[in-house]
Amino acid sequence: MIRSACKHPFIIVLMLLFIPSVVYPAVGDTVLMKGFDLLPNTRQNAVRLVQLALDSCKKLRHPVLVFEKGRYDFWPQYAIEKDYFESNSTDINPKRCAIMVHAFDGLDIDAGGSDFIFHDRMQPFTIDHSKNIAIRNVRIDWDIPLTAQATVIDTGAAFVDIRIDPLQFPFIIEDDKIVFVGEGWKSQLWGMMEFEKSSGLIAPRTGDDGVLGDNWNRYVASVLPSGVIRMNFPFKRKPSIGNTLVLRHSERDHAGIFILGSSRVSLDKITIYHTAGLGVLSQYSSDLSFRGLHVIPNLEKGRVFSGHDDGCHFSNCKGEILVDSCSFRGLMDDPINVHGTAVQVVAMRSDRELVCRFMHHQSVGMDWGFQGDTVGFIDHSTMQTIATGKIAKISFTSLTDFVLSFEQPVPSSLKVKDALENLTWTPSIRIANSLFSVNRARGILVSTPGKVLIENNRFESSGSAILIAGDANQWFESGAVKDVTIRKNTFTDACLTSMYQFCEAIISIEPEIPSLSAARPFHRNIRVEENEFHSFDYPVLYAKSTAGISFINNTITRSTRFEPFHPRKSMLSFVACSNIAVTGNRLIGDVLGKNILLKNTNKKELKSRGLQIVTD
Amino acid sequence: MIRSACKHPFIIVLMLLFIPSVVYPAVGDTVLMKGFDLLPNTRQNAVRLVQLALDSCKKLRHPVLVFEKGRYDFWPQYAIEKDYFESNSTDINPKRCAIMVHAFDGLDIDAGGSDFIFHDRMQPFTIDHSKNIAIRNVRIDWDIPLTAQATVIDTGAAFVDIRIDPLQFPFIIEDDKIVFVGEGWKSQLWGMMEFEKSSGLIAPRTGDDGVLGDNWNRYVASVLPSGVIRMNFPFKRKPSIGNTLVLRHSERDHAGIFILGSSRVSLDKITIYHTAGLGVLSQYSSDLSFRGLHVIPNLEKGRVFSGHDDGCHFSNCKGEILVDSCSFRGLMDDPINVHGTAVQVVAMRSDRELVCRFMHHQSVGMDWGFQGDTVGFIDHSTMQTIATGKIAKISFTSLTDFVLSFEQPVPSSLKVKDALENLTWTPSIRIANSLFSVNRARGILVSTPGKVLIENNRFESSGSAILIAGDANQWFESGAVKDVTIRKNTFTDACLTSMYQFCEAIISIEPEIPSLSAARPFHRNIRVEENEFHSFDYPVLYAKSTAGISFINNTITRSTRFEPFHPRKSMLSFVACSNIAVTGNRLIGDVLGKNILLKNTNKKELKSRGLQIVTD
Repeated sequence: MIRSACKHPFIIVLMLLFIPSVVYPAVGDTVLMKGFDLLPNTRQNAVRLVQLALDSCKKLRHPVLVFEKGRYDFWPQYAIEKDYFESNSTDINPKRCAIMVHAFDGLDIDAGGSDFIFHDRMQPFTIDHSKNIAIRNVRIDWDIPLTAQATVIDTGAAFVDIRIDPLQFPFIIEDDKIVFVGEGWKSQLWGMMEFEKSSGLIAPRTGDDGVLGDNWNRYVASVLPSGVIRMNFPFKRKPSIGNTLVLRHSERDHAGIFILGSSRVSLDKITIYHTAGLGVLSQYSSDLSFRGLHVIPNLEKGRVFSGHDDGCHFSNCKGEILVDSCSFRGLMDDPINVHGTAVQVVAMRSDRELVCRFMHHQSVGMDWGFQGDTVGFIDHSTMQTIATGKIAKISFTSLTDFVLSFEQPVPSSLKVKDALENLTWTPSIRIANSLFSVNRARGILVSTPGKVLIENNRFESSGSAILIAGDANQWFESGAVKDVTIRKNTFTDACLTSMYQFCEAIISIEPEIPSLSAARPFHRNIRVEENEFHSFDYPVLYAKSTAGISFINNTITRSTRFEPFHPRKSMLSFVACSNIAVTGNRLIGDVLGKNILLKNTNKKELKSRGLQIVTD
Repeated sequence: MIRSACKHPFIIVLMLLFIPSVVYPAVGDTVLMKGFDLLPNTRQNAVRLVQLALDSCKKLRHPVLVFEKGRYDFWPQYAIEKDYFESNSTDINPKRCAIMVHAFDGLDIDAGGSDFIFHDRMQPFTIDHSKNIAIRNVRIDWDIPLTAQATVIDTGAAFVDIRIDPLQFPFIIEDDKIVFVGEGWKSQLWGMMEFEKSSGLIAPRTGDDGVLGDNWNRYVASVLPSGVIRMNFPFKRKPSIGNTLVLRHSERDHAGIFILGSSRVSLDKITIYHTAGLGVLSQYSSDLSFRGLHVIPNLEKGRVFSGHDDGCHFSNCKGEILVDSCSFRGLMDDPINVHGTAVQVVAMRSDRELVCRFMHHQSVGMDWGFQGDTVGFIDHSTMQTIATGKIAKISFTSLTDFVLSFEQPVPSSLKVKDALENLTWTPSIRIANSLFSVNRARGILVSTPGKVLIENNRFESSGSAILIAGDANQWFESGAVKDVTIRKNTFTDACLTSMYQFCEAIISIEPEIPSLSAARPFHRNIRVEENEFHSFDYPVLYAKSTAGISFINNTITRSTRFEPFHPRKSMLSFVACSNIAVTGNRLIGDVLGKNILLKNTNKKELKSRGLQIVTD
């Protein structure tokens, strides 16, 4: 699939011509890892020697830690153990930190194109309260990953036969179930994704609807004399023989690269073949530049999966974020997710003091804000920001609850169950020249009021290519957008071949608003321009509660590669929107629908030509 | 082969009837491992939780730590790291101690028949300066052992094809060589042993003479498409197709169970399927009882090898040692070795003060003696103990050198290069009802002036069954014997099918004495009585420098299973011996030689009947 990206010369040319907007050059002293008796390809545990080298780096002005090219192994022994509450991850603490960059100002790590091989559950890189950090030229992988895969050998009315490579994915059958046993862990299969042998795509219309149908987990496993595993059960759906099943197991408990409370961090030419959770998790950090970051399967090992979950997750970041010339494939969740974290008001102590609570279990324990931060007060039914305030003090009373004191009185209409978002920790982001290939779920999730530019990317996502959501009632991922440009991207016909949550169209703008009204838009100013859509189904764009949305100068080409199946039968849908422009678009072939659905939206708000307008 | 032991009912009956001479019963409090949240079969690293349980045990009077039956995994993470200088092992420090019993008086560990699976280079049990310790009901193994094996698939004029199970023995080909890569280590093949598929024996006349002939290590390895490894070289000798090659690699750096400075330790019903070095190493310890200790291959895993080196090694122990109802097979060195450590006088500071030195690199760093210990002064050319003295003080100046002060003046004839042995740390030992099956090298090595009783055992050793050596010039393993009885044992025709060092006969008494004289015997009082020998070759007994040696009421039955090859053509050989009795022996079949060789031995010293006497 990486090769397939190369078929698109525009990406290559842009990769070559690209002049980075953020550069953190190294000007300081070189520290050689081999000077600490760590040579490549020895298979010894590198953890302690790398720690010693980093200790030594700390004494220099702008050290560059250089690895000789080769293989380095990292085992849990000697890993720094530290409690971290990582966004959208499971809080199994302490985390095991193999390479810890803590309290540095100025550090380059140049791995020289090396392979860093990790063992057991681990966090390869941790960048904690540091600035001016650059990491480059490294490939991260596991010999025995925290996700497995199998080949479908045969199927019958009451069985599916699969073969699992026991070298990469050691397993046992215990109590009739397939249980993976790794380097210090044991983990039962809990889910699967089917990847087609022929196309490399996730088998259409599987996704979160399932590969084997309801109750599949009632299977009884046995090992046939050939070593093939027979899963005995009258599965409602059968995978195709020869296809690859990604066998999902284990918790998402460590990121690949965790960036916390840090600024001016650049990742360059980094390939993440696997992680034990999110790929790169940036949290309460600012000014991040990721170039040539690839979270992709290790094809040499015959793998179709890469990371255990998301690719790049930006939770409560600020400043400028750049994601350029990157690629994402084989992830078991979204390639990019940018959002804040809404919290709920659970008690009002005074007109300046609120008791707030993290509502999602994967948010607890995080920082939420700092003195001086600007906070938005959100009416939880209308999702409107009714006012803003500045934090005078924040103090935690538990992992979930904290007391916020404000410089001025909070709005008098604020009530318990309303939400707060931190408006200071909201970044701008440019995502360009990147490949969003076949992954479970969607392509890019973005929820930030900062400037968002998504351009020159290629999307082969299984679900929606781009989702702009936002809610303060279920996931509590905050961030109404104010300035989003989606331009010159290619959305292939792989997009939206499977269903996942919030997949209303190839571009899905779907905030969750209990009390919806076009007069109270949640999102603003979204431009979808000069993109190419190769759509086999109806929905191309779905927008809800957006003021100022344009779909201009795009080309939509009909693909007949897949049968249309999406319940939504309109090409463009606008729900409770205003100030809509649909002009200059070119439709090639028998594009389905050729229509615009308006719902809770005044026709006067739409400027369009040539498309049928349907109101609901 | 374990099954083959059961063919010999006398062993079984004795196992059942055996009333232990040393019992250290548990009378104290029971501590349940599951009370520390460690359940079996979880695959989690047990190390830290077992340490916590042992910490808790320390507060009780005579705790019994009980494991629920199942599998427990031990990884290097959290292992106690401590420098130990382990006898006859390579000093790679610190040692990684998984289960550390330190400074206990009274502790039982009952593993309930569990499997303790270790990972990486590690020492499963360490019993350090403790007393009244009992460990029982445990099987020790590695998923990925520190020794590998292969099946011979094909051979040709210039190649040998072998298959290695990559799950048990992961390997790579690097610079044309087979290199094993385990859990935190990498290790090149440096030796091999051939085990016959048909007989289970080490292929006759291989042993230390080699499987593939000289210069075999110049091979060039490649992997064929079938996964078979081709070793390209015009090997002088070819192994037989279907046979198993034990592929030796890695250092002997950790014992399986290390007992140091401890007393009254019993091991009961313990199976050691593998170790990273010696099996059970007892050092400066006393009163040890090993019953139902089996160091044998894990047949369920298809292995023919067990431990990396010796089975039970007793270095500088004292008191009573019991080895009863044990078995040893597939070891890459001797099943049992009992000896002291001679040191050399390197300088004489005064008539009471000597500078001494450990001469063998696998002895350095050990304790050598303690205040009040009795020391023998040995003339290094005659190997005679010229006097004894008591240690007033010992102080180490380096890992190899120490200063010994004596209560009285040392003998005036003592000179530099003479040797010292510690006569206090010399045990008595009874080895009974045990199986010494197919192992590299010999069966029992014994060098101690204490009472030695070797009875009711079965020997299928590849080299000599019993070796009584002793030297102060090369290996520096000290211990002239004074009272040895070898009775009612069966020596099968597997004995002495291969050659190793000091293999002069099935029972080989061979001290190394530069200046030999029958008037100055090194060993004394050795009785070989009522044994059965099934010999295919000439040499049954070889004795050197022994005063008082009897070979009485034995049965020697000729076996024609193998071609005789041993250069020694006498059945019994006595070199520089005195007071020899050879009577009442029964020869069945065409026993080879039927002769007695006397060398440097006066005929008058021999009482015998019916055998031809040859003098040299």
